[in-house]
Amino acid sequence: MTETSEDRFARGMAALEKVFPVGSSAMPQFHYPSEIEKDWGHFSVSTVLGDVWSRPGLELKYRAMISIAALAALNKPGSLKAYIIGGLKQGLTRQEICEIIFQVAIYAGFPAAIEAFGHACEAFEQVDRAAEPAA
Amino acid sequence: MTETSEDRFARGMAALEKVFPVGSSAMPQFHYPSEIEKDWGHFSVSTVLGDVWSRPGLELKYRAMISIAALAALNKPGSLKAYIIGGLKQGLTRQEICEIIFQVAIYAGFPAAIEAFGHACEAFEQVDRAAEPAA
Amino acid sequence: MTETSEDRFARGMAALEKVFPVGSSAMPQFHYPSEIEKDWGHFSVSTVLGDVWSRPGLELKYRAMISIAALAALNKPGSLKAYIIGGLKQGLTRQEICEIIFQVAIYAGFPAAIEAFGHACEAFEQVDRAAEPAA
Amino acid sequence: MTETSEDRFARGMAALEKVFPVGSSAMPQFHYPSEIEKDWGHFSVSTVLGDVWSRPGLELKYRAMISIAALAALNKPGSLKAYIIGGLKQGLTRQEICEIIFQVAIYAGFPAAIEAFGHACEAFEQVDRAAEPAA
Amino acid sequence: MTETSEDRFARGMAALEKVFPVGSSAMPQFHYPSEIEKDWGHFSVSTVLGDVWSRPGLELKYRAMISIAALAALNKPGSLKAYIIGGLKQGLTRQEICEIIFQVAIYAGFPAAIEAFGHACEAFEQVDRAAEPAA
Amino acid sequence: MTETSEDRFARGMAALEKVFPVGSSAMPQFHYPSEIEKDWGHFSVSTVLGDVWSRPGLELKYRAMISIAALAALNKPGSLKAYIIGGLKQGLTRQEICEIIFQVAIYAGFPAAIEAFGHACEAFEQVDRAAEPAA
Repeated sequence: MTETSEDRFARGMAALEKVFPVGSSAMPQFHYPSEIEKDWGHFSVSTVLGDVWSRPGLELKYRAMISIAALAALNKPGSLKAYIIGGLKQGLTRQEICEIIFQVAIYAGFPAAIEAFGHACEAFEQVDRAAEPAA
Repeated sequence: MTETSEDRFARGMAALEKVFPVGSSAMPQFHYPSEIEKDWGHFSVSTVLGDVWSRPGLELKYRAMISIAALAALNKPGSLKAYIIGGLKQGLTRQEICEIIFQVAIYAGFPAAIEAFGHACEAFEQVDRAAEPAA
Repeated sequence: MTETSEDRFARGMAALEKVFPVGSSAMPQFHYPSEIEKDWGHFSVSTVLGDVWSRPGLELKYRAMISIAALAALNKPGSLKAYIIGGLKQGLTRQEICEIIFQVAIYAGFPAAIEAFGHACEAFEQVDRAAEPAA
Repeated sequence: MTETSEDRFARGMAALEKVFPVGSSAMPQFHYPSEIEKDWGHFSVSTVLGDVWSRPGLELKYRAMISIAALAALNKPGSLKAYIIGGLKQGLTRQEICEIIFQVAIYAGFPAAIEAFGHACEAFEQVDRAAEPAA
Repeated sequence: MTETSEDRFARGMAALEKVFPVGSSAMPQFHYPSEIEKDWGHFSVSTVLGDVWSRPGLELKYRAMISIAALAALNKPGSLKAYIIGGLKQGLTRQEICEIIFQVAIYAGFPAAIEAFGHACEAFEQVDRAAEPAA
Repeated sequence: MTETSEDRFARGMAALEKVFPVGSSAMPQFHYPSEIEKDWGHFSVSTVLGDVWSRPGLELKYRAMISIAALAALNKPGSLKAYIIGGLKQGLTRQEICEIIFQVAIYAGFPAAIEAFGHACEAFEQVDRAAEPAA
């Protein structure tokens, strides 16, 4: 039953592949200082994807729903866009993503929802552009 | 086609009955100044329950999930406890409510989750106490 | 005394005309996914302008003051700019808008005020540009 | 032209007297570690009351309005109660204070307003109790 | 080179022993639902103490300083008290803890600092009480 | 021992020179409406630098550490970049600044840290560019 840190990271990378396909042209990019990039990458993949997203008890689709609700409430544009794109991949429809933001308006205020709708537009457009064949 | 403000309020009260049963002993209480209580009650029932929770497109169970995620992220103890109790009524299990909070830890920070787990304890205990027959 | 949802929306649109004149070239633009644009527009105009801004008890000028204070504290750039422009229309002076932000510095921190002053600059410039005759 | 730090502190104490009458039984109490109490008291009275609340350009009544809006949005119970009591002294009515919170609901979310209404209840009750003659 | 999850948890428990001595009577208590207590305990000790606090590059005293600054800014009373007590154990003086909060006032607003000073009072009193011999 | 407001402002300017060297090409720029620029400049230099940063009891290096932790937690990009550049001048290394943000991830959430790492990249690049001789 003993798990190594390599197992944990591998489980994280497998979840990452499912939620945020590496190399997908729809994926937002984050920038990290070279001093921390490797450590942070290993830590955040192991923790966020390997420890949390890999837990049983909730389908990935609903984990995406929870993440989008929290990120819209907390007003984190870059992560929100990434999770909206990831949520579409888990089977959430664009209509459902809009419903999540609509409901968050009540709890986090209308301006938070207005900004989140703008980020949803950008995420949807990014997905549309990535779906187009290169000319 | 035309809806009156009475229809809208009635729809809100019907949703309220489903999500937060009036008179339920498990229900947290809020206090309002007498100067605003009636106006606020009419406005918030009509808007939150009548306009938003009554929208099609998402089951009530998932509206509860979204609300709990947003309220845990935003750190609103009174509302969070009310929606946890309401979420149990919509079919979320205690395990699922704990999973929601566990996942919010990543996005809103561990202290937000620690406080939310404490509020979940209080909500679960309130439900347990309400379920006990009076001696 | 029965009001229909059309009456409520019309009251919202009338308030919108007063606070954020439609078609005004000074007005910031928000973007919404096509899946939600119509529903959100109807809901937010009816609620924000029709229900809240149309309440008696405070002049529009002071409703603008409260909104600017809350939005500066909450750090919502797009909405803050819109309400600063709307506040100028309700009779707040540029000096008064700066005083609001100056005071919010104490409660929300100096960086929130510094960002809000930057948004005020952009709003004032937008109004100045809109006032210039096209060449 | 030259102002001393004693002048500034005295101006702060004069504003404090007006907004939060010292010794008023309605006044909420804050607690400070003995290591910092004197320095913080001098600094915060000089800055908040002496520098900001003493600025020309806005009547104290509207400074109270702005402070209440920001504190309700930011969810700071202790300070909110103090400023509600101080706002009543500057001529805001209970109805107006409730209108401020009602409007903040739109920008900061309904749960922030619900909590702020609860704090307003406590502030109003504290004022009522202080107004009663000791038996 | 390969680390097991047991190693990681053990490293977390060792850091926990240093920062928040188990069984210390000065330690604030958190409550968790029984459905999640074991999983959360293992996850949070492994991540917070095992992964982050055990990193090289900063002395524990400065990790405590950073944590106190972030928690005062974010307004998390329970965690702030725990980390103030933990910070005293890492060699921060009461005066230094007060300086941290004083400085956070500028960035997070005076009310956040006022609340944090109150929590520091409670933390210091808890430590004083724990130091007293039982009668 | 009487201090004049000119002394206080001069002390603030001296601290400003140390932390954020005026005219430094690495320095982020803030914009203020002309109605408030002079008053705000005098007030914020006197308060932030003259009153707070000039206090004894903590080395400037640790004041920078606290400020970076609070600004990363509060998500204030413009100020965060300025204080990261200022922190490098006080002797914090790039590695230490990354460690501060890494640790804040636990308390303010991973998305706050991800955004802060992005702002650190921009700050480091700005410093690198300023260090290059003009061609």
